[in-house]
Amino acid sequence: MKATTLKEIANLLGISITTVSKALKDYPDVSAKTKKAVIDLAEQLNFTPNSFAVNLRTKESKTIGLIIPEVVHHFFSNVINGIIEEADKYGYMVIILQSNESLELEKKQVNLLFNKRVDGILMSLSNESNDDNHLKNIISNGIPFVQFDKISKLIPSSKVIINDQKAASEAVQHLIDIGCKKIAHIRGPENPQNAIDRFLGYKKTLEKNGILFDSKLVYTCENVTFDEGLEFAKQIVNDHPDVDGIFAVTDLVAVGVLAYFNEKGIQVPDQIAVIGFSNWFMAQVITPKLSTVDQPSYEMGVAAFSLLVEEMICHKEGKVFHPRTIELETSIIVRESSAKTN
Amino acid sequence: MKATTLKEIANLLGISITTVSKALKDYPDVSAKTKKAVIDLAEQLNFTPNSFAVNLRTKESKTIGLIIPEVVHHFFSNVINGIIEEADKYGYMVIILQSNESLELEKKQVNLLFNKRVDGILMSLSNESNDDNHLKNIISNGIPFVQFDKISKLIPSSKVIINDQKAASEAVQHLIDIGCKKIAHIRGPENPQNAIDRFLGYKKTLEKNGILFDSKLVYTCENVTFDEGLEFAKQIVNDHPDVDGIFAVTDLVAVGVLAYFNEKGIQVPDQIAVIGFSNWFMAQVITPKLSTVDQPSYEMGVAAFSLLVEEMICHKEGKVFHPRTIELETSIIVRESSAKTN
Repeated sequence: MKATTLKEIANLLGISITTVSKALKDYPDVSAKTKKAVIDLAEQLNFTPNSFAVNLRTKESKTIGLIIPEVVHHFFSNVINGIIEEADKYGYMVIILQSNESLELEKKQVNLLFNKRVDGILMSLSNESNDDNHLKNIISNGIPFVQFDKISKLIPSSKVIINDQKAASEAVQHLIDIGCKKIAHIRGPENPQNAIDRFLGYKKTLEKNGILFDSKLVYTCENVTFDEGLEFAKQIVNDHPDVDGIFAVTDLVAVGVLAYFNEKGIQVPDQIAVIGFSNWFMAQVITPKLSTVDQPSYEMGVAAFSLLVEEMICHKEGKVFHPRTIELETSIIVRESSAKTN
Repeated sequence: MKATTLKEIANLLGISITTVSKALKDYPDVSAKTKKAVIDLAEQLNFTPNSFAVNLRTKESKTIGLIIPEVVHHFFSNVINGIIEEADKYGYMVIILQSNESLELEKKQVNLLFNKRVDGILMSLSNESNDDNHLKNIISNGIPFVQFDKISKLIPSSKVIINDQKAASEAVQHLIDIGCKKIAHIRGPENPQNAIDRFLGYKKTLEKNGILFDSKLVYTCENVTFDEGLEFAKQIVNDHPDVDGIFAVTDLVAVGVLAYFNEKGIQVPDQIAVIGFSNWFMAQVITPKLSTVDQPSYEMGVAAFSLLVEEMICHKEGKVFHPRTIELETSIIVRESSAKTN
């Protein structure tokens, strides 16, 4: 469905665009009769507040919206920090909304930001997100938009990502290089692209090294928690006592694994080596210190805002902006949990 | 200096308050001549945008501002979570600004929120804050305002706090009860009330138990970091090898202490018992598990927003609001780092 514009309403009623805009904003200098005519027609044409967010805008709001799965998360809180600091330099304020990993809530938050007339939107998708209509809506409304971390590849917006498949591949290769023969993977949920890519990196690296992939060695988190790490560690040693390496989808899960092994006196890395993903601060202070993939988080926030501000400037100047993708580098950090020589 | 009101400008120019308001907002239905007269007089009277934020407001913005020292902080990220979730229930959006523990930045952020015409402000003060003028400004502009965690006692706003002195006292009493005779304290910076109160709780509890207070056993953090914990742990065992208990101002600092002791093979709690403050998630997964004071964080966010929404409703209805203080309960969580019997 083509979106109705202010101009169409103005033409149909034979009044100016300014008057339509003022009527919808309930300005006192528009007559009650005109206001009613405009509002009735707007409703008839399904002209929702969402679809005129951009058209109505007479000036910048100097506010951007950020939708993330959760604030209380070492990775996202660092991303937020990067975004807020960078936005502050350009005089932008940041409204932060959480999707709590729910698609429904995520859609609601997008609508809230439309109504708030933010100048741009930054977003990392919820794990449930497999429906892109609300994202397409952002684009079709002409609102500058950058996806980061958990993204939809199909949406033609700017993106800030890491190469999850490559990073996971390096992590698994490291376990193989130190002599692991049977490596289990505790993966993220089915939907998010990063969980899929980390899993693919694991699978392909085994195959590349001539190790048979066994789907029974893959354990799938629902919520990617410490408790799931603990529980899957237990299942792994019970079901497959000969597993000698574990690649966990995040450090939080890996820390759950280590907690179980500490409790049971299972030697890390001698019996089982463990590597996580993200390089959470905590990874370097637990016992044993956790090997992991260093994933830039603050830098991701900075890069995401930089792309957004570039697009917002183009938008303001009426220029065409071509979405870009920035891929940030990751690296393997070897600590005690995988510190053994082959 | 008394703040100039719209009414005074209107009276001085012999025009209506509405016209003054519209002139300042650059409405098209006010003549250029009137606009100039209003703006000139406003400038002359030092009538800054900040001072008319409330007066000019014709409707709610359904947005509140939150100023905190830092987002990347286990405690504050949980508080933010409580605030965002509660605000969402009432249809409010939250603009989050960081002071980075700087008074100057904090003042700037308050002004940004004035200009943004937020309906209310929630704030936890930076460690540098010892000047209250920007806080008084919030109150004198009639903007609903709640302070939480790090507060200024002298500002007559609503507050959400814990009893830091009592909580610290319980932590130190616990160390004494398990047999500690010589207890060091790693305290927070000089300014923040919570650091002062935790220190006073420590000092008074020693005295109450007939233990001589020794200022040389008090180490003062500048930035309250893991590294400071590590460094002070080293100093403590070097300067006072007979210290048998440490009370650290936060869990992060306590974790730094434990990291040093782990590295040096110093037995916790047998040689030195350690207790932290805040009950960060990490406290329960490190080795040894850290005893601490459980400080409600999510609940603090919820309570702060609840007080704010109460005040915003009163404000909207033109009723007088009487600021209230909510004191949340804390409790001692005993884990391995202090698990010994006297």
